[in-house]
Amino acid sequence: MRAVTGFAASGPREPLRPFEFTRRDLRPDDVAVRVTHVGVCHSELHAVEAMAAGSPPLVPGHEFTGEVTAVGAEVTRFRVGDAVAVGNIVDSCGRCDSCRAHREPYCAEFPATTYGGRDLHDGSPTQGAYSTEYVVRDAFVYALPAGLDAAAVAPLMCAGVTTWSPLRRAGVGPGQQVGIVGLGGLGHLAVRFAVAMGARVTVFTSSPAKEADARALGAHDVVVSTDPAAMAAVAGRLDLVLDTASGAHDLAPYLAALRLDGTLCVLGLPEQYVVSPMSLLGRSLTVSGSGGTAETQEMLDFCGEHGLTADVEVLPLAEVNTAFERLRRNDVRYRFVLAVAS
Amino acid sequence: MRAVTGFAASGPREPLRPFEFTRRDLRPDDVAVRVTHVGVCHSELHAVEAMAAGSPPLVPGHEFTGEVTAVGAEVTRFRVGDAVAVGNIVDSCGRCDSCRAHREPYCAEFPATTYGGRDLHDGSPTQGAYSTEYVVRDAFVYALPAGLDAAAVAPLMCAGVTTWSPLRRAGVGPGQQVGIVGLGGLGHLAVRFAVAMGARVTVFTSSPAKEADARALGAHDVVVSTDPAAMAAVAGRLDLVLDTASGAHDLAPYLAALRLDGTLCVLGLPEQYVVSPMSLLGRSLTVSGSGGTAETQEMLDFCGEHGLTADVEVLPLAEVNTAFERLRRNDVRYRFVLAVAS
Repeated sequence: MRAVTGFAASGPREPLRPFEFTRRDLRPDDVAVRVTHVGVCHSELHAVEAMAAGSPPLVPGHEFTGEVTAVGAEVTRFRVGDAVAVGNIVDSCGRCDSCRAHREPYCAEFPATTYGGRDLHDGSPTQGAYSTEYVVRDAFVYALPAGLDAAAVAPLMCAGVTTWSPLRRAGVGPGQQVGIVGLGGLGHLAVRFAVAMGARVTVFTSSPAKEADARALGAHDVVVSTDPAAMAAVAGRLDLVLDTASGAHDLAPYLAALRLDGTLCVLGLPEQYVVSPMSLLGRSLTVSGSGGTAETQEMLDFCGEHGLTADVEVLPLAEVNTAFERLRRNDVRYRFVLAVAS
Repeated sequence: MRAVTGFAASGPREPLRPFEFTRRDLRPDDVAVRVTHVGVCHSELHAVEAMAAGSPPLVPGHEFTGEVTAVGAEVTRFRVGDAVAVGNIVDSCGRCDSCRAHREPYCAEFPATTYGGRDLHDGSPTQGAYSTEYVVRDAFVYALPAGLDAAAVAPLMCAGVTTWSPLRRAGVGPGQQVGIVGLGGLGHLAVRFAVAMGARVTVFTSSPAKEADARALGAHDVVVSTDPAAMAAVAGRLDLVLDTASGAHDLAPYLAALRLDGTLCVLGLPEQYVVSPMSLLGRSLTVSGSGGTAETQEMLDFCGEHGLTADVEVLPLAEVNTAFERLRRNDVRYRFVLAVAS
């Protein structure tokens, strides 16, 4: 077994604390990665807050970059020293329709998530990348694109591909009008992607103060969602609205912004959506999960070509509790990344 | 003005009664049609039941066939004596994106409906085709396909195109699996269309007794929707589910029947849908209105080629109240058509 140091949560009210644990010895198709940078995702904050007090230690972290330190006997795609990236899924059944289409997040048997899940072979709990090393099946490891900053790539591996996938699947490109709701970790990458894909991009934000930020990211139009006149002016105009806002909110204003045959794609997962049939008439509502291995590779290639990464604020791993505290207040532009090693 | 006799409702509890009224003199782009057959649609029953007692007389009827009796000065597509068909829309703005795409039901200024609407020129109320003659703008008149029975074509003009449009827009064809929920006026045509398009068709019905009917229409599989085991067996299998069931019902079982990227298209309009995000993950929910002029013509051409029409029970116009009474009990297979003239 491989000795690892990380930061773990044991309940919703306690700080994350240093935690010594082990990773498995490498299977023939495994890659060991020394973690250098790991993004801090809102979903991790939620996962910790949902823990029962006194739970077994949970190490978060599911979008990270690092360096290969060892490879299994059958691994041919990577060598020791390679710069690599890993996202929110580390294994899947490989046999179902979704897996065969390389859309593993939709695996019929449910994939192994990078933390808080179960290893598909031995059933052991998966522990995340707020830690010095990770061991992962090679099929879920990606080469870090040359020329990109490893810290700024880490958030691409979850926040990035989660917005890339629905934009790409909708065929976003020149001549299309795309709306992005929310300007956080996901939203700021969605704006960059949609702009780089050639679409005209409208950002919906509840904070008038974010207009300058949205335009700096490349947005062509900014609509303050609490302004009824501004919302009415955009009605019937957009081909796709990508809703990155977390928490329950009314979808009707964004459905109204769609043109005929337009799609509202929601990334947040509140308990339920309540939708009026008339607001959906001639429009579609869809919920997108994360992207699979094919889309992740495609996104990384695109980011390498366009020099596109996340805007990050880097803190040392030991300051993870500061990152969580500030994330609770949405005080980050746009993603915290923890530096684990350099 | 042109003198017309029809049957009108004045409130929810009274029978429809004979009613003398007038149609407008022909405008240059108008066609006068002697109505021979008019379908009886559930929505008409609902419209009558929603009337306030003592309302001005309302003549229903919005899917009909007949013979041209006069044409306006600028009409070139039709001549006196032509056999024609008309559906649920008789005019639209012609300028908005939807109209320019010939998808007039989604007209941004709202189209003129065949009854219960307003004429777009003079604002007069539109009265439907439970009547001896109708006057309609030529762009909303279709040639009756040669060789098809005029009575059995009438329901194609609303029930038909309303199911045709989403099937066609989803690109239904060989290799696809399509589910149809409900086996009434809309559902039976949806089954015929999807089968003729080459798809494998599963009918969902709450009545085990309808299995033989479904198979007679060409369905390959029949699932009794109240049987949890049968519903579980179809999970993750269908590319498209077309839900023709009226009234509020749980959409989750039909979303579960979809494969990744599958679409649930709902035709009924209850007050709201309540949907869990997880049931929509990787699936789409859409609401379809009726088809426009381009799709209606395409459907009629297809029906002419395939000899495809509705199964109808024909009653004389004077028995409209019998038709309504039996429709309330769902006692029809699958559409009443009123014979107005022969």
